[in-house]
Amino acid sequence: MGPRHAGPGVPLQVLAEHCGGQLVGNGGIVISAMAALNDAAPGDIAFLANRRYRGQLATTRASAVIVAPDDAGLTALPKLVTENPYAAYAKAAALLYPPVLAVPGINASASVSATAQVAASATIGAFVVVGERTRIGERAWIHAGCVIGDDCELGDDVVLYPRVVVYADTRIGTRSIVHAGVVLGADGFGMAEEHGRWLKVPQVGGVVIGTDVEIGANTTIDRGALGNTVLEDNVKLDNQIQIGHNCRIGAHTAIAGQAGVAGSTRIGRNCKIGGAAMIIGHIEIADGTVISGGTSVFDTIREPGVYTSVFPTLPHREWKHVASVVRRLRRLAERVLTLERTIKHLGE
Amino acid sequence: MGPRHAGPGVPLQVLAEHCGGQLVGNGGIVISAMAALNDAAPGDIAFLANRRYRGQLATTRASAVIVAPDDAGLTALPKLVTENPYAAYAKAAALLYPPVLAVPGINASASVSATAQVAASATIGAFVVVGERTRIGERAWIHAGCVIGDDCELGDDVVLYPRVVVYADTRIGTRSIVHAGVVLGADGFGMAEEHGRWLKVPQVGGVVIGTDVEIGANTTIDRGALGNTVLEDNVKLDNQIQIGHNCRIGAHTAIAGQAGVAGSTRIGRNCKIGGAAMIIGHIEIADGTVISGGTSVFDTIREPGVYTSVFPTLPHREWKHVASVVRRLRRLAERVLTLERTIKHLGE
Amino acid sequence: MGPRHAGPGVPLQVLAEHCGGQLVGNGGIVISAMAALNDAAPGDIAFLANRRYRGQLATTRASAVIVAPDDAGLTALPKLVTENPYAAYAKAAALLYPPVLAVPGINASASVSATAQVAASATIGAFVVVGERTRIGERAWIHAGCVIGDDCELGDDVVLYPRVVVYADTRIGTRSIVHAGVVLGADGFGMAEEHGRWLKVPQVGGVVIGTDVEIGANTTIDRGALGNTVLEDNVKLDNQIQIGHNCRIGAHTAIAGQAGVAGSTRIGRNCKIGGAAMIIGHIEIADGTVISGGTSVFDTIREPGVYTSVFPTLPHREWKHVASVVRRLRRLAERVLTLERTIKHLGE
Repeated sequence: MGPRHAGPGVPLQVLAEHCGGQLVGNGGIVISAMAALNDAAPGDIAFLANRRYRGQLATTRASAVIVAPDDAGLTALPKLVTENPYAAYAKAAALLYPPVLAVPGINASASVSATAQVAASATIGAFVVVGERTRIGERAWIHAGCVIGDDCELGDDVVLYPRVVVYADTRIGTRSIVHAGVVLGADGFGMAEEHGRWLKVPQVGGVVIGTDVEIGANTTIDRGALGNTVLEDNVKLDNQIQIGHNCRIGAHTAIAGQAGVAGSTRIGRNCKIGGAAMIIGHIEIADGTVISGGTSVFDTIREPGVYTSVFPTLPHREWKHVASVVRRLRRLAERVLTLERTIKHLGE
Repeated sequence: MGPRHAGPGVPLQVLAEHCGGQLVGNGGIVISAMAALNDAAPGDIAFLANRRYRGQLATTRASAVIVAPDDAGLTALPKLVTENPYAAYAKAAALLYPPVLAVPGINASASVSATAQVAASATIGAFVVVGERTRIGERAWIHAGCVIGDDCELGDDVVLYPRVVVYADTRIGTRSIVHAGVVLGADGFGMAEEHGRWLKVPQVGGVVIGTDVEIGANTTIDRGALGNTVLEDNVKLDNQIQIGHNCRIGAHTAIAGQAGVAGSTRIGRNCKIGGAAMIIGHIEIADGTVISGGTSVFDTIREPGVYTSVFPTLPHREWKHVASVVRRLRRLAERVLTLERTIKHLGE
Repeated sequence: MGPRHAGPGVPLQVLAEHCGGQLVGNGGIVISAMAALNDAAPGDIAFLANRRYRGQLATTRASAVIVAPDDAGLTALPKLVTENPYAAYAKAAALLYPPVLAVPGINASASVSATAQVAASATIGAFVVVGERTRIGERAWIHAGCVIGDDCELGDDVVLYPRVVVYADTRIGTRSIVHAGVVLGADGFGMAEEHGRWLKVPQVGGVVIGTDVEIGANTTIDRGALGNTVLEDNVKLDNQIQIGHNCRIGAHTAIAGQAGVAGSTRIGRNCKIGGAAMIIGHIEIADGTVISGGTSVFDTIREPGVYTSVFPTLPHREWKHVASVVRRLRRLAERVLTLERTIKHLGE
């Protein structure tokens, strides 16, 4: 399970070619690590993606920087100039910090079903369980303690970090990454009320996860009741998110930590959902919608845009007064109406 | 770990007897799977539980349907007519999708204490740990990677999905189901402040879970500080719920995903708590109370009813205006009062 | 994995010396357990920390009590009198319920790297994995199923309950306790948008946890993007908390269940953050700040104090009226302004 330690270093010229930026200055200097502007040391490359930190360009000890064209004039350091410094940072970091390489093979302690098909280039860690008829693709890396049920399909280059549980009938696309403690395919929350008791509704659908998806630690994605729960390609989920049964999350949508999506809701493509947002079941969210952190969404959103619902934070004493007015807000509105009528009458 | 695949099929007549509905039409046709009205294929039975989808009765390709008496006239298909189509669906699905059967016995890799008592008909999966003096009932199924502490009691037909952790002194009643990643009996959040530092308060109580309970993936239920944390019979918890120490959740209460209940709170019977609801500690919630999703509850609720506290979602630009008025709401109320006095004076 | 059962009992005199209170009455009586005032039986010691329960002093069956000076006159029972009864309770419980002792050694089933250094007095449970070059201190107890990555350092007396995952490059200080299901050091939620797709930003920082920290079940703490995520000494985190990459949580700060802190936020020392609170990224919270449960914090807080943002809970029918006024609040404010102008005009 890999930390990513800096590799032997890369000439700035090579970084520029890899990241697609324009090289300004000496391309022969060797860059050995990535750092924030105010933490950088000689040998590091830093980046400016948030203009709030522009002042740090003058004082950084980095050997080179990644900047946008508008900021290029602010520093005499060797630099990569690019319209998207944050994306260039992502690419540079991937080059400077090579991924830890797995040693292919099945750990002797793992319990792999005789009917499972595991690619020879895949790595299966200690104490992993792989169920009947499950297929695991080339170079996939299943870290220690994962439990994968029957009839699953994990694509090439999939990574499951330690202790992921994959219930039966789950499919995970190529290059997707699943962090520790995630549970994929547990039963959705389905039950029928009869005479004041709950009857369990068997959850007989599955989970289908696209390619290039990343799922954060301890997130849970329930299997469908009938039919599948679906994450399309390049969906990015942070930690401790809950996705209910039969949801569909559109491609390139990112959801921040502790958000929840109740059953059968469909979220469009390229949406951004803030942390701790709560989205009710059986609604639809349009492509490109942005939901602020902490916001509760109770109705379908047809128009993309930014949506928010959280109450402003106040010092508690002040909040108590405000909350007390909120409670009586209907009465306040009625009083204003009465005033308007009275004045109209007085004015006549 | 079982997906539930459709079995060999069941004559509609048999389904009717099993589900308790009235059979209308040819009871001899064989039903092989359950499906939603708009997804169904020949051989499937579909159901109408939400009248919003009534239009789909005319176009479904299902071979039979489950409907309420009021909707029975809308289709000529063979059907089961029942006052509670959703409960009939639950029962039909349980018949059509037989549970995966466990193979009794203790996996050779499991680590079971010599003083534990495991019923011969129970199934203990790979890499399971069972502590001292713990008892596991008939036909219980402990999936791979579970860790069960000392002095626990798991009733007959209990199912623990993979990687459940059960701390010492936990009791789980008959037929209860616990999904992957759940933690039962971790220490409650108890500490005493002394000279600006926190001292840990030992948590010496336990957890007691009734019969026919279901607990969703990655939910956590803390042990009592003194005395027990209790879930009564037929409580249904969704994923990622947090139940604090010494809470008591009444029978037949259902709580949706990511809700939290702080310590020592008592929730009544037959309550319904929405997703991401937050209930403070040391309060009581009356039997039959419904709490809307996202709602924060800070006071005891004595009268059953539906309770809500979330702010309506708005486009962000509009929300900013509203939030700014909310912040100054106390002043607004004062201005209305001033107006009322002025007008009274003017009118005199 | 230890429940804490009461030990053989302790004379009240010894408890008094251990807890630092003033003994009043017979110090020779043997106390064998701790209990709540209304649950206590003979042989138990109870405590009064919340004055709401003062009435129970008259009826408790406890053999002794822990009380504050102001309440000492309310009972004739043998007692410990102290300014901080809750802290005395914590200390008394620690004495009455001795911790379960681990048996040092490495379980035969564990998979410990040849390059790891495990103290001889440490306990490594079944199916534990310890990575390359990782060091584990004296008397540390790593329970069953934990997975610890490469290059980690766990201090003396650290306890990891079952199924904790520690990614590579994580440091945990002396005496810190980590509950089941916790994930330390998973990748932070970092990605760059390019042409409508997300690129992963490698997360190459680590996690540094101080001494005397406690982390609740299924909590997740992400590794830094560049640099570390830090929990200072004596931080107390409840269950299911999410701490984003590069956060710093100050010493002696306590955070209740299901709260979340987004990336790069710095929380001061001795703060108290309520359950389900949500704190946005890139802000600072002053030392000694208190955030109410359920509150969303979107801006830096420079002045310590109590802060709140949750909407008051109402019966749903009433809430609907209030919510509808809230939605039109900007208009209401404008109407009040119009009224004020009209009246001013009328008054002239």
